[in-house]
Amino acid sequence: MSSYNAPLRDLRFLLEELLDHRSLRLPEYQEVSAELVTAILDEAARLAGEVWAPLNRRGDEQGCRLEAGEVRAPTGFAEAYRAFAEGGWNGIGSDPDHGGQGLPEVVASAVQEMWQAANMALALCPLLTAGAVEALAQHGSEELKSRYLEKLVSGEWTGTMNLTEPQAGSDLSKVRTRAVPEGAHYRLNGQKIFITWGEHDCADNIIHLVLARLPDAAEGNRGISLFLVPKFLVDEQGHLGERNDVRCVSLEHKLGIHGSPTCALSFGEQDGAIGYLVGEPGHGLQHMFTMMNAARHKVGIQGIGVAERAYQQARTYAMQRVQGRTPAARGGRPAVLSEHYEVRRMLLSMRARLEALRALALLSASEMDRARYAPTVDERQGAQRRVDLYTPVVKAFSTDQAVDIASLGVQVHGGMGYMEETGAAQHLRDARIAPIYEGTNGIQALDLAGRKIQRDGGATLGGVLDEVAACAVDLTANAKLAGLGASLHQGVEDLRRAVAIVLARGDDAEHGHDALQALATPLLALTGHVLCAWQMGRAALIAQTALASGDDEAFYRAKLISADFVLRQWLPMGRAHLAAIEASPSLFEAPV
Amino acid sequence: MSSYNAPLRDLRFLLEELLDHRSLRLPEYQEVSAELVTAILDEAARLAGEVWAPLNRRGDEQGCRLEAGEVRAPTGFAEAYRAFAEGGWNGIGSDPDHGGQGLPEVVASAVQEMWQAANMALALCPLLTAGAVEALAQHGSEELKSRYLEKLVSGEWTGTMNLTEPQAGSDLSKVRTRAVPEGAHYRLNGQKIFITWGEHDCADNIIHLVLARLPDAAEGNRGISLFLVPKFLVDEQGHLGERNDVRCVSLEHKLGIHGSPTCALSFGEQDGAIGYLVGEPGHGLQHMFTMMNAARHKVGIQGIGVAERAYQQARTYAMQRVQGRTPAARGGRPAVLSEHYEVRRMLLSMRARLEALRALALLSASEMDRARYAPTVDERQGAQRRVDLYTPVVKAFSTDQAVDIASLGVQVHGGMGYMEETGAAQHLRDARIAPIYEGTNGIQALDLAGRKIQRDGGATLGGVLDEVAACAVDLTANAKLAGLGASLHQGVEDLRRAVAIVLARGDDAEHGHDALQALATPLLALTGHVLCAWQMGRAALIAQTALASGDDEAFYRAKLISADFVLRQWLPMGRAHLAAIEASPSLFEAPV
Repeated sequence: MSSYNAPLRDLRFLLEELLDHRSLRLPEYQEVSAELVTAILDEAARLAGEVWAPLNRRGDEQGCRLEAGEVRAPTGFAEAYRAFAEGGWNGIGSDPDHGGQGLPEVVASAVQEMWQAANMALALCPLLTAGAVEALAQHGSEELKSRYLEKLVSGEWTGTMNLTEPQAGSDLSKVRTRAVPEGAHYRLNGQKIFITWGEHDCADNIIHLVLARLPDAAEGNRGISLFLVPKFLVDEQGHLGERNDVRCVSLEHKLGIHGSPTCALSFGEQDGAIGYLVGEPGHGLQHMFTMMNAARHKVGIQGIGVAERAYQQARTYAMQRVQGRTPAARGGRPAVLSEHYEVRRMLLSMRARLEALRALALLSASEMDRARYAPTVDERQGAQRRVDLYTPVVKAFSTDQAVDIASLGVQVHGGMGYMEETGAAQHLRDARIAPIYEGTNGIQALDLAGRKIQRDGGATLGGVLDEVAACAVDLTANAKLAGLGASLHQGVEDLRRAVAIVLARGDDAEHGHDALQALATPLLALTGHVLCAWQMGRAALIAQTALASGDDEAFYRAKLISADFVLRQWLPMGRAHLAAIEASPSLFEAPV
Repeated sequence: MSSYNAPLRDLRFLLEELLDHRSLRLPEYQEVSAELVTAILDEAARLAGEVWAPLNRRGDEQGCRLEAGEVRAPTGFAEAYRAFAEGGWNGIGSDPDHGGQGLPEVVASAVQEMWQAANMALALCPLLTAGAVEALAQHGSEELKSRYLEKLVSGEWTGTMNLTEPQAGSDLSKVRTRAVPEGAHYRLNGQKIFITWGEHDCADNIIHLVLARLPDAAEGNRGISLFLVPKFLVDEQGHLGERNDVRCVSLEHKLGIHGSPTCALSFGEQDGAIGYLVGEPGHGLQHMFTMMNAARHKVGIQGIGVAERAYQQARTYAMQRVQGRTPAARGGRPAVLSEHYEVRRMLLSMRARLEALRALALLSASEMDRARYAPTVDERQGAQRRVDLYTPVVKAFSTDQAVDIASLGVQVHGGMGYMEETGAAQHLRDARIAPIYEGTNGIQALDLAGRKIQRDGGATLGGVLDEVAACAVDLTANAKLAGLGASLHQGVEDLRRAVAIVLARGDDAEHGHDALQALATPLLALTGHVLCAWQMGRAALIAQTALASGDDEAFYRAKLISADFVLRQWLPMGRAHLAAIEASPSLFEAPV
């Protein structure tokens, strides 16, 4: 049975040293001490490791059951979820006005990784609730907020996002569900599919946020509004009332995350499901994107979490499994897998990439904190632009890498990795959803190329690249890290060249859209490589200084090796993506 | 339901044009005409597409059942297998002296891809039988050959390879199964695991080839001998007699290839299983490697087959699924997925890589033909050295790429790809075994670095690279292909540099072994990239000439696009692997 130990040492390094606790220095967080953060991480690690992680395999084996419209989560999930909600974990990043603990997003993100690693299927439930909290807090009326928000923040109730319908995948303009006004509420009729945790027995109520059309609505995106549809109606005192007219009609049979019920929901099979308008009519998509952007960041962290779990399991196996012998020069004695450098390469590749991805995700989370609470408008807007830039990269790059890392985890196990009982294959199956949902990674790449780079003429990314270049200069000035500096400098040049191509080709009124599509995916990969390498370059500088002071030598030496791997063995992949960007117009002549 | 159409046009291009039917010009094959080969491919495509492919999904869903020691394959598998055997397909590459059809390996390999694509789980059965035929034909006594070979070649009986035991994974020196002499035969006792098609109901008898130790055998590899153990004993007239003392005690629950029973076999629970020595005592491992080398080539082709199936399914879906709209410049009308260039990139990447991998695998197969039948000893030995060089690359590079291609196939489907009913996920699950079995891809990489490059001082690969360089010169001389030539030239330089590193670092008596382990995996990837790019460079030259003559324009234009993708967008990854090779000594300082 695989166990899970949260990477506390690395998380503390990132929060305290790499990010220098910048979020804690915002006025809003002056009461959050570094010691409190450490205590929170320790406590979350305990619940994740001891309560959530042991259920992960069972969740996969048992899956969810639909019985007479009710969904039963795997045995133990309801109790584990309640322990989480009762521990106050659901709302750690939420506004204290709604019952949250008001901790910085960077801390919430660090903790988030632990739930995802411990039990990705179960962790999806609060991930969706968080989206509902966000949408309601930003767009809901005071009445809706007072009736629903506190219980969603506490986790007593859970939330869902209802976007997709059978005829509409990523293209939400095709949504057909209808909402007809009836007094102060609406009656909804329609079918939604792929609703994560759309029905379950882990909480007393489920609050669905649903895209639907008013009777007189326009065609396309502008006719879509957002509605809140509770599973059980809630009276003015907050008591649960009648069952609303929304039913789970089927569960999907998926490649992975078997412990997470993916529901087809039918709204209004009888009188129409009672729902309440959230925000402005016709602004449903914008309001939903509020949820989706936060969810994209979290899905990136989910990828990191599941890949970390796969790494830990592979490492444990490699340190125990006897296989072959060491070479004569190292004694010629029976060896465990991890004594073979071919296996050691796989483990280092998993570990180093994880450290880099985690650093980037937490950097982005810290910018979220600054976007909300930095002292000046300029700072807040600048931070928000960086969040917007980083989000598609964190989502797509982390999840693509997560699939690869989980696949390497299978490989380290050899034949045992292919046997389901081992559990390594589950991580690969689970991880495989992350590049798909919350906007496919292709959609993230288009978002990066178009909205995040082309739209501002490359200004935001250019500003970031100036900082990356400065980091490369610092590395080059350090005799022991000069090779890393040269590699990072090359990465900066490559990405600058890619930005120039984006701007030149994207500018073509006739073919610009297609040109960006043709290069978007390698562009995102190159950007991910350079941003990750930047963070590991910064980490190397810190580690080098710490080593000079003799502090925690094993940790900082390992960090230097990870940085070396990322900058000198992994970043060169970025150059290959630049070549793909340059040659991408050949796609236009390709047959289907 | 996904269907499968064998890539007949591409196979014919490879056999007729890229390989110029070199195998057919060997004296041994003078009676095999090009027309006959075409007819064979067409006929195989029909059986694969119409009979085997429709069972693929059901095999995954139903899996195999173990009932009282007997294994039931999925419904329809036995009939499909018999149609294959009765059609004479099992022995198309085997010696006519044993009832085979004596066709060139290059033709057998082309056909092999079709079975693997149509139904990978079922195709494993004859893949294993072929290994048993090879071992028996090369090492078996005349008596064993006359009693067993013909029925194995015809496919009336099937074969297995029994290597792994619970305590011994890739390290076969740990084998403990014992064989005690008793008159003309032996009695075997022991447990074997991971035995593919080790027990089933698709054929009348199963011939197990089993590694075991004689009572007085030495420790380690040199104490291992090879034995033939039939499921049913066979009398002198070839009639089936008593059930032998070998039982299937359990079936593995695997990530994929559910239609292929992976058995734990117990030999000798009663009186000891009767077995017959194959070849020399103590030479079991060498004899088994005869089977494994052929099997490694076939597993590479298996990767190509399952990835081709994934590609076809993704392409079909992308051409049907309406999603979004074309950009305004292309009419702004509702579009199918394949009209978006981000999706088109995925499809081209799948297709171009498949064409390149297929070309390399068939090149290697054609060298097998020359290694057996070229007129002079020098030619035969030279060809064999190339087969030895290419085999680990065909096995490992094709299967690593296959996993990635099958994963892209899931991605093209979006959310539907994650639903098991779609079938895309099955291809990923099935493909994931191929980098593991028949020697993990890490073991292939060590084989390439050590036995295939270091041992002959890089001579064989050097000779190949001279030809690749000549191809680069030809490309550069062609105005339309000069960019491809420059890229290929760079690839040659990169690989030459890598070979120099292998020789320099591998030469170190103390650390050479570890140094090769640390760089083996990126070395194999770089080699795969350059060899594949070479074949596509040659294909581009042929296509350019054919286009000048106006022949089959669509096909040759598509081939040029694939070549452009491989040489200018994919080959640059090779450079990144060179960087990893150069920086690989940092692994020695890495913590576990």
